[in-house]
Amino acid sequence: MRLSRYFLPVLKETPREAQIVSHRYMLQAGMIKQASAGIYSWLPLGFKVLRKLENIVHEEQQRAGHLPMLMPTLQPAELWQESGRYNGYGKEMLRVEDRHGREMVYGPTNEELITDIFRSHVGSYKELPLTLYHIQWKFRDEVRPRFGVMRGREFFMKDGYNFDLTKEDALHAYNRHLVSYLRTYERMGLKAIPMRADSGPIGGEDTHEFLVLAETGESEVFYDSAVTDLHLGSRVVDYDSVAQCQAIFDEWTTPYARTDETHDEGVFVEVPEERRRKARGIEVGQIFYFGTKYSESMNATVDDGQGNKVPVHMGSHGIGVSRLLGAIIEANHDDKGIIWPEGVTPFHCGILNMRSGDEAADAACDAIYDSLTALGLEPLYDDRDERAGAKFGTMDMIGLPWRITVGPRGLKNGVVELTCRRTGESEELPPQQAVEKIAQIYRDIQ
Amino acid sequence: MRLSRYFLPVLKETPREAQIVSHRYMLQAGMIKQASAGIYSWLPLGFKVLRKLENIVHEEQQRAGHLPMLMPTLQPAELWQESGRYNGYGKEMLRVEDRHGREMVYGPTNEELITDIFRSHVGSYKELPLTLYHIQWKFRDEVRPRFGVMRGREFFMKDGYNFDLTKEDALHAYNRHLVSYLRTYERMGLKAIPMRADSGPIGGEDTHEFLVLAETGESEVFYDSAVTDLHLGSRVVDYDSVAQCQAIFDEWTTPYARTDETHDEGVFVEVPEERRRKARGIEVGQIFYFGTKYSESMNATVDDGQGNKVPVHMGSHGIGVSRLLGAIIEANHDDKGIIWPEGVTPFHCGILNMRSGDEAADAACDAIYDSLTALGLEPLYDDRDERAGAKFGTMDMIGLPWRITVGPRGLKNGVVELTCRRTGESEELPPQQAVEKIAQIYRDIQ
Repeated sequence: MRLSRYFLPVLKETPREAQIVSHRYMLQAGMIKQASAGIYSWLPLGFKVLRKLENIVHEEQQRAGHLPMLMPTLQPAELWQESGRYNGYGKEMLRVEDRHGREMVYGPTNEELITDIFRSHVGSYKELPLTLYHIQWKFRDEVRPRFGVMRGREFFMKDGYNFDLTKEDALHAYNRHLVSYLRTYERMGLKAIPMRADSGPIGGEDTHEFLVLAETGESEVFYDSAVTDLHLGSRVVDYDSVAQCQAIFDEWTTPYARTDETHDEGVFVEVPEERRRKARGIEVGQIFYFGTKYSESMNATVDDGQGNKVPVHMGSHGIGVSRLLGAIIEANHDDKGIIWPEGVTPFHCGILNMRSGDEAADAACDAIYDSLTALGLEPLYDDRDERAGAKFGTMDMIGLPWRITVGPRGLKNGVVELTCRRTGESEELPPQQAVEKIAQIYRDIQ
Repeated sequence: MRLSRYFLPVLKETPREAQIVSHRYMLQAGMIKQASAGIYSWLPLGFKVLRKLENIVHEEQQRAGHLPMLMPTLQPAELWQESGRYNGYGKEMLRVEDRHGREMVYGPTNEELITDIFRSHVGSYKELPLTLYHIQWKFRDEVRPRFGVMRGREFFMKDGYNFDLTKEDALHAYNRHLVSYLRTYERMGLKAIPMRADSGPIGGEDTHEFLVLAETGESEVFYDSAVTDLHLGSRVVDYDSVAQCQAIFDEWTTPYARTDETHDEGVFVEVPEERRRKARGIEVGQIFYFGTKYSESMNATVDDGQGNKVPVHMGSHGIGVSRLLGAIIEANHDDKGIIWPEGVTPFHCGILNMRSGDEAADAACDAIYDSLTALGLEPLYDDRDERAGAKFGTMDMIGLPWRITVGPRGLKNGVVELTCRRTGESEELPPQQAVEKIAQIYRDIQ
């Protein structure tokens, strides 16, 4: 993409309404624009990252054997009355009346609707196990929306639901989700720690939250530093294997890691002192096993093969996709702007023309652009007729992990400058070597 | 995908509520389930096709140089009051009040919101031309929703908006959209005819609707059969070229083609009689040029380079993505079920095991499955322990364009059966040849 043809309204001034860095940078980098309180438009750069996150979530869910589908944003109120949550959910649930006076809600979550689909179509244990998920816009009418997309009202969430014959099968589904979430966050360059949590209005027995460490996190967290040394890396996981998923669950949940809601000082002090950590965290996902809570109230039963109708064991599992964008920035930035991890960056590499209009510089930039594109990479080429200072400022703010800077002086020596956004380190090398180096970096993370 | 692990709730009975074939087949093939009147959940098979259509629309819009973004579903009422459409839009617009009593609307279209984004960020002719689009759920509270996803209330639409300095530039954007839409529909296996139309509540001077011929279409259409002979095919189009886009516009809009709203019998009789056609059509898209209607009422101006602030020339351009699914089925089916065009089929090929449990048949199916997958194709393998008759019925209903049938008898002779869903023609050939033939078919349509 050539910047002259892109829509990247970078703000010069610091937006006053932004209290945290991710909100400020997303506004400044021209990624979002507020439509009304807690509701945002995603401008091209923001949408591009959002779509990348969505695709990573899809890939990892399908790798785990979960089936994608899509439920609507508006749901009939009757289902919520049936489950007993219609009155209990309170003012966070946006209630709507259509032209015929029928009550609907803008879904804040989908347990009721998915259970209704399940009970309409599934009647036998033979069709289990089954995990369905979707990634759809949700609405929660927060009293005081803030922190940009981190606590918005209209937000993009992946929510998945497992249906199993037994508690054991449902706990395998729970572990399978834990593993798929760990892999999802790792691909996004995030270290998210599963922590035992409270279940809240969803209800349930077992639940873990995934928290990304960041100073601006809304939760206080307590953990054994051993948990942050764990990596899935390139481990191959057979998601059908109960033992493999259980082993990863055990590995990640044995070290102490809890939020303030479930923190137990008496247990925490048993962690060796040098490994005891207290910090703040941002919640980016949560998994639940809630047994037969919804299947009983909504009569979602299956034939168990012995002539009995039994309620299915269920769980629900969410990843806040739009919120993740904020969390990634909270965990990856400096005072000049965003620093995207390679796995989610909107463009793979920036090309900065120090002197647009200079024949040699223009030709070199075009050649680099074409070479990167031919290798399947997407560069963002700042071809505008702007001062070099403004171009550097824009590149730093939007945070592409790699930048190739092209100027007439370097070209005379046959070199361009390759700069790493995270370290700030630069090296001079011939254009084709810079291109090959970037291509190798992206090959390595696949 | 193995069918034993998929969620494909094929209905045996014919759903009574469905008045048209696409609605009936989408329910029977387990693609959708109604959540409430005019609001649907997309089950895995339906979602898979919807996502393919969405991706094709994205690819063709970006090929034309248009920039993807995403606006929220809920919009502030103030913007609609500013444009003057808040009261005029009537009961089709779903109005919502949040917990603080603020009025919002579930967007039926986005002229106001995009104009607000534009005026906030763009001030100079130098940043033009600009076309932004998104693909997002919309809501129109139809009095009587019907025909499944063809006239739903919550629907998935691509809407794009061009901003140009002059009328000439805006008309080039109009033509560019026409070309990109023609290419989009062709990739989906549809013949959609641009027809001069009325502008309705969007307002504007120039507008064309795109109609797919189908007996169940809601509009009566009149056209010169010459228009249905036109194909873009593999023509390379430079979307920046005013002349090229204008030439395609002229080519497609010179033959007579109008809906009943704009039909002029006096002009129609000048078409040679043997080419005069009267038929029914389904609207699958519409493009508008409406000049400065919104930019004047909402004060979206730019500096024209000579010190004047001038309102920008705009147009809006829509494709009904969820509706397209119904239109494709209306135009591609027989009495046994759907017949997907290769460009949009949810799976590339079905594999039907005539005798699951037979060692040779199972092994042959697995080998075919692996070969197709290795070639980048996605097969759907019916590995269920079901009667062959039920398996054939399911495959015909869900309409994959190609099917490989594997049975013990054929395997003894070293062959499987390759069947074309559209023609019903079958041929026996060795498994690897069947695989290669299918791979070649999909290579050819790329």
